Amino acid sequence: MKETAEGMIVGRNPVIEAMNAGREIEKLFIAKGAEGSIKKIAAIAKDNGVPVHYEEKQVLDRLSGSGNQGVVAIVLAHSYCEVEDIMALAEERGEDPFVVILDGVEDPHNLGAVIRTAEAAGAHGVIIPKRRAAGITAAAVKASAGATEHMLCAKVPNIAQAVEKLKSMGLWIAACDMDGQLYYEADLTGGIGLVVGSEGTGIGKLVKEKCDFVLAITMKGKISSLNASNAAAVLMYEVRRQRDGKQKNP
Amino acid sequence: MKETAEGMIVGRNPVIEAMNAGREIEKLFIAKGAEGSIKKIAAIAKDNGVPVHYEEKQVLDRLSGSGNQGVVAIVLAHSYCEVEDIMALAEERGEDPFVVILDGVEDPHNLGAVIRTAEAAGAHGVIIPKRRAAGITAAAVKASAGATEHMLCAKVPNIAQAVEKLKSMGLWIAACDMDGQLYYEADLTGGIGLVVGSEGTGIGKLVKEKCDFVLAITMKGKISSLNASNAAAVLMYEVRRQRDGKQKNP
Repeated sequence: MKETAEGMIVGRNPVIEAMNAGREIEKLFIAKGAEGSIKKIAAIAKDNGVPVHYEEKQVLDRLSGSGNQGVVAIVLAHSYCEVEDIMALAEERGEDPFVVILDGVEDPHNLGAVIRTAEAAGAHGVIIPKRRAAGITAAAVKASAGATEHMLCAKVPNIAQAVEKLKSMGLWIAACDMDGQLYYEADLTGGIGLVVGSEGTGIGKLVKEKCDFVLAITMKGKISSLNASNAAAVLMYEVRRQRDGKQKNP
Repeated sequence: MKETAEGMIVGRNPVIEAMNAGREIEKLFIAKGAEGSIKKIAAIAKDNGVPVHYEEKQVLDRLSGSGNQGVVAIVLAHSYCEVEDIMALAEERGEDPFVVILDGVEDPHNLGAVIRTAEAAGAHGVIIPKRRAAGITAAAVKASAGATEHMLCAKVPNIAQAVEKLKSMGLWIAACDMDGQLYYEADLTGGIGLVVGSEGTGIGKLVKEKCDFVLAITMKGKISSLNASNAAAVLMYEVRRQRDGKQKNP
């Protein structure tokens, strides 16, 4: 597993706001001899159980560049895994791989909800893109109700390539979009990757072209799509339903 | 249908903040002859396309009480309906009623997502409680992707009483909770009300006691529940799937 830092929060007011908002901070660096609101910041950190490290100003400047006002907070980092780790987990459990691929979901609440539902539905992992998408930030961790701790999540540079890789590993890749077959009429019992698109623009053209088939969710009203996490939930639980049904009636 | 005002925003800074936050304002009342930051407020209103009405200070005081600093904004109100309107829509469509009851969902994003999915799944209406729950605010409207415009929503003083009323109208009421039968093994094809609980505490004891049966969603991981809108989506689409399947194989 690789550790990828989500980043840092720099400056007095931003750090105060982050702590007041309950953002999870791994450690707080304060420059030795800094004055003014520093005492207040140290007190809030203490109240929130954030470990405070006093270092020379130059140490902070090396971390964040200058202009940090003597305060740098290191934000909780999430452990991402590799696609191979997700496959290994499926194998370890003796199950057909069940992977959820998010092609550009930008809202951390949606990401958190997807991870939470994926964990509950028995998926082996979630794949997200490195850029132009929500990462596992404190907001996503919170929205996941802690499921991020129990779910493998791979962050890949390119979703289309990840889809290719999963296909080469024997998975069938299903895109969730409007122009497909009814999701519950498809056979979803083998190794499967479900691709769910971004809130605004759906699945990218290139990614969709690489998918083996398209699953459509019944839309009976005037709205043309579901919230990304809701769409993912409907599909993930159809996979779950079909898998459990198959086990019951071999 | 009854019109229920969501309320008003009173005072200069609150109104400026609300407009800057993109909150939908129906109209803005400014007291004739008011001075100071009023020009700035009128300019922001113009930029945001908010209609401004200049009235005597007494008119504003009658609206909001005094202490309004010469500024009162009327916030966009949503049209709520009565439970009977939802039943009437089902009858009009010649369908068994399909209602979603939210017992205290507090997050407007969850409420919006539920309304969006309910509209797409072909539900006839959503019932929410008057107190201790999210209402159809601008945030919920946005999260619904506009579905609030196409979906009946009733706001009731008491969810347990609403459940009783729906039962007396012939609906079967299903609570979504952990200790029930597997949701896809239950017959959900008749007139049905799905009760989904709040994010923190689930369905209230009294409400759950009044339900006819309990539906459990398969939980394969370590997390013990889904996000409220995700849980509702899974159940709503199981209702949809069963209804469409029934139509196909009469």
